[in-house]
Amino acid sequence: MTFNGLIRDLKKTVGSSKIIFSNEELQVYAGDASYDLINHTPDVVVLPETVDDVIKVVRYAKAYKVAITPRGAGSGLAGGCTPLSGGIVLDMKRMNAIIEINRTNLTATCEAGVVLAQLHRAVEKEKLFYPPDPQSKSICTLGGNISTRAGGPRAIKYGTTGHYVLGLEIVLPDGEFIKTGNICLKHSVGYDLTHLFTGAEGTLGVIVKADLRLLPKPESQRTVIITCESVQQAADLIGDIVRAGIIPSTLEYLSRSPIKLFNKNIKPPLKEDGGAYLFVKLDGSKVGINDDLKKLEEICTETNSIDIRIVDNKNAALYWQMRANLYPMMVAQNDKIIPEDVTVPRDKIPAFIEKVKKISEYYKMKIGISGHAGDGNMHPSIIIPDRDKHTESEILMVIHEIIKSGLDLRGNISGEHGVGVLKSEFSYLELGERQIEVMKRIKKAIDPQGIMNPGKIWKN
Amino acid sequence: MTFNGLIRDLKKTVGSSKIIFSNEELQVYAGDASYDLINHTPDVVVLPETVDDVIKVVRYAKAYKVAITPRGAGSGLAGGCTPLSGGIVLDMKRMNAIIEINRTNLTATCEAGVVLAQLHRAVEKEKLFYPPDPQSKSICTLGGNISTRAGGPRAIKYGTTGHYVLGLEIVLPDGEFIKTGNICLKHSVGYDLTHLFTGAEGTLGVIVKADLRLLPKPESQRTVIITCESVQQAADLIGDIVRAGIIPSTLEYLSRSPIKLFNKNIKPPLKEDGGAYLFVKLDGSKVGINDDLKKLEEICTETNSIDIRIVDNKNAALYWQMRANLYPMMVAQNDKIIPEDVTVPRDKIPAFIEKVKKISEYYKMKIGISGHAGDGNMHPSIIIPDRDKHTESEILMVIHEIIKSGLDLRGNISGEHGVGVLKSEFSYLELGERQIEVMKRIKKAIDPQGIMNPGKIWKN
Repeated sequence: MTFNGLIRDLKKTVGSSKIIFSNEELQVYAGDASYDLINHTPDVVVLPETVDDVIKVVRYAKAYKVAITPRGAGSGLAGGCTPLSGGIVLDMKRMNAIIEINRTNLTATCEAGVVLAQLHRAVEKEKLFYPPDPQSKSICTLGGNISTRAGGPRAIKYGTTGHYVLGLEIVLPDGEFIKTGNICLKHSVGYDLTHLFTGAEGTLGVIVKADLRLLPKPESQRTVIITCESVQQAADLIGDIVRAGIIPSTLEYLSRSPIKLFNKNIKPPLKEDGGAYLFVKLDGSKVGINDDLKKLEEICTETNSIDIRIVDNKNAALYWQMRANLYPMMVAQNDKIIPEDVTVPRDKIPAFIEKVKKISEYYKMKIGISGHAGDGNMHPSIIIPDRDKHTESEILMVIHEIIKSGLDLRGNISGEHGVGVLKSEFSYLELGERQIEVMKRIKKAIDPQGIMNPGKIWKN
Repeated sequence: MTFNGLIRDLKKTVGSSKIIFSNEELQVYAGDASYDLINHTPDVVVLPETVDDVIKVVRYAKAYKVAITPRGAGSGLAGGCTPLSGGIVLDMKRMNAIIEINRTNLTATCEAGVVLAQLHRAVEKEKLFYPPDPQSKSICTLGGNISTRAGGPRAIKYGTTGHYVLGLEIVLPDGEFIKTGNICLKHSVGYDLTHLFTGAEGTLGVIVKADLRLLPKPESQRTVIITCESVQQAADLIGDIVRAGIIPSTLEYLSRSPIKLFNKNIKPPLKEDGGAYLFVKLDGSKVGINDDLKKLEEICTETNSIDIRIVDNKNAALYWQMRANLYPMMVAQNDKIIPEDVTVPRDKIPAFIEKVKKISEYYKMKIGISGHAGDGNMHPSIIIPDRDKHTESEILMVIHEIIKSGLDLRGNISGEHGVGVLKSEFSYLELGERQIEVMKRIKKAIDPQGIMNPGKIWKN
């Protein structure tokens, strides 16, 4: 298939208005938000507007063995939507209808291109709640969230995207269409294909629609900032909070370094001599929150935390906005940032932080540590102020060491970003050859030609 | 392989003390708790005590192409553990160790043969909570729960077994061993094999161990019985409750007929002229429950329910015991009972009940209706007081009509019992040929010889 033939055929298949093929525009589709990874431009981008468009394109790709890479907002951090073999990128952003919000059934049915914040707003208007909240929520799409089992800070209490996907509509690599699951909470009919496709990073088919579970919107919420003496004290506190039966909706760990920056906007400033900081959000009924607040203050007093600040609800958004901006802020200030995404059991957080500090010292590389500590999901970020200072292989070594540290503590190599390209050479470390072999067999059974998002999850 | 050869070989493989092959004992393994279904005795039962035992038996079965049917307590209601092709039943009950309960990480790691009530007791002693609660909880095993994505009344608030399985240890049909997932809440590494095997009804491998997610034990609970004028009023109430942001931990629907029986034990008796009854349990903090109770009373007053009874906590267990005994009680009193398990969206419950009543009238067959109405999971039970009155094909027709009624309302054919044998001829109605084709390809990829629990989920 020549390039001109491909464009000509796709124009006939879905119409010119749904195709992008100018060189400049294709550059945008060469990678995702992960910094400085292998990029690769596709031959063409199709922006389907209907399920039928998707089916036609996939059938065409099948007939001519052209690679297809489904793409949400491109906000991923593992290179999952990088079209390694060129071919067609399916940009799902035009399929962005919220089809139904059912207040009695507590479900929503949405197209894959719906932006997460758009869904949040729509359901919250109905006093409902969709918990998953990756930091990229203002731009990321549901299809991308589902394909990476995306998480976010609220996972500690509410779980991740997989916990809210009830059913999917999928175009398979042979162009056939299936509908898995449905809008019922209970479902015990055959293999759970819904969750097989959730987290498959677009390698098994194109997700076009999803049935999602909703919750009632919590009546109220409250933000608390705890300044701790040390990492160990912060980790102990996390354990104490959980064991006291308090499950915050968010429980973030921050090191000292970003606090100075935050203090430019916060009045009064937070104490800057803390060894670690916990950003806590409680949600639920007002009486329930007051109950939890009391317990939380007692715990902090008992453990001699430096400071506990209960933030006024009208100022809370500022604190969380700063937390969400941490990664883009670091990207802006440095030559290169590699955000890691490792999860460890909650009781292993101090051991993990200790290991990362040692790696940082040994390799003389700056590593910032923040994370959704409540659920053990840590994001050490390798900070390269000047990229001439370290070789690629040194950086790779550090990534490898961080990943191994997590695994040694019974953790996993990716909590919420997926494997994509970035970690495809490390997945065997966690999964082992036998498990990858099973995944490869499933891949082959569903996509025998290997046209769906090739080169991801494992190295061939 | 002759019968004698099989016994001799297995004795050598795992030792005589782990094998059952007398005719009388094999009868026990011919079926499950579903009444009057196709039964089939296995050739031999193996009771493995270690993962190594399981591996050895599966390798042996693979070498000689002998069928293997994994079995928990045999309390299933769809014939899922009936060894249709004879061969080996793997009775997992001896692998019943609770290996770890981690209070800080809120996780438990258990062998597959752990009885659910045993886990409930163990975690509750630590002030923790494992929500899934099928009515057979005093005998059913975790392996069986996982293999059927079992639910129970608490699913309305807490979801089903699948929501609590974080990782699995599995012996594959080729005798190889894999460990999927882990004890972390967040996990985004490759295909979600954990949930592919959860609900696979033992057709893809033998689950030997599971990592489970726990919650803090709710501080308190409260039982409320609401007597409604009509089915419609009960259904409206369910909607009103949910839309008011109250999610009870349990919300059961009962028809009038069992109430008379219950009244033999209840003081004062419940009013017997209700058109429908809701058994509600609220859980959470004491203040939170009081808040919900107030709202609930207001809703009942506004909708003119006949009666609302807030049950003393010390008497509540009696009400729930009677609810749990409903099915065995019906079985004891009638010649034959076929318990159906259909889920519909919550707002479609009255339409479903109406349809079932019409089926009952048309076929002149008694159908009792109860269900976990909070999550739309309805259990119409076909009651045959005298089995000579109806032919098998009439009964099959009624089952078919009930299932179709659920599907027409966007429901599914099995909420929590699985497909097993009982529904294997109906699964295509929900899943469609294309989706079953995908499942068959996965089955073939993982179990090419077809030795794992053959004949289940779909008709070949």
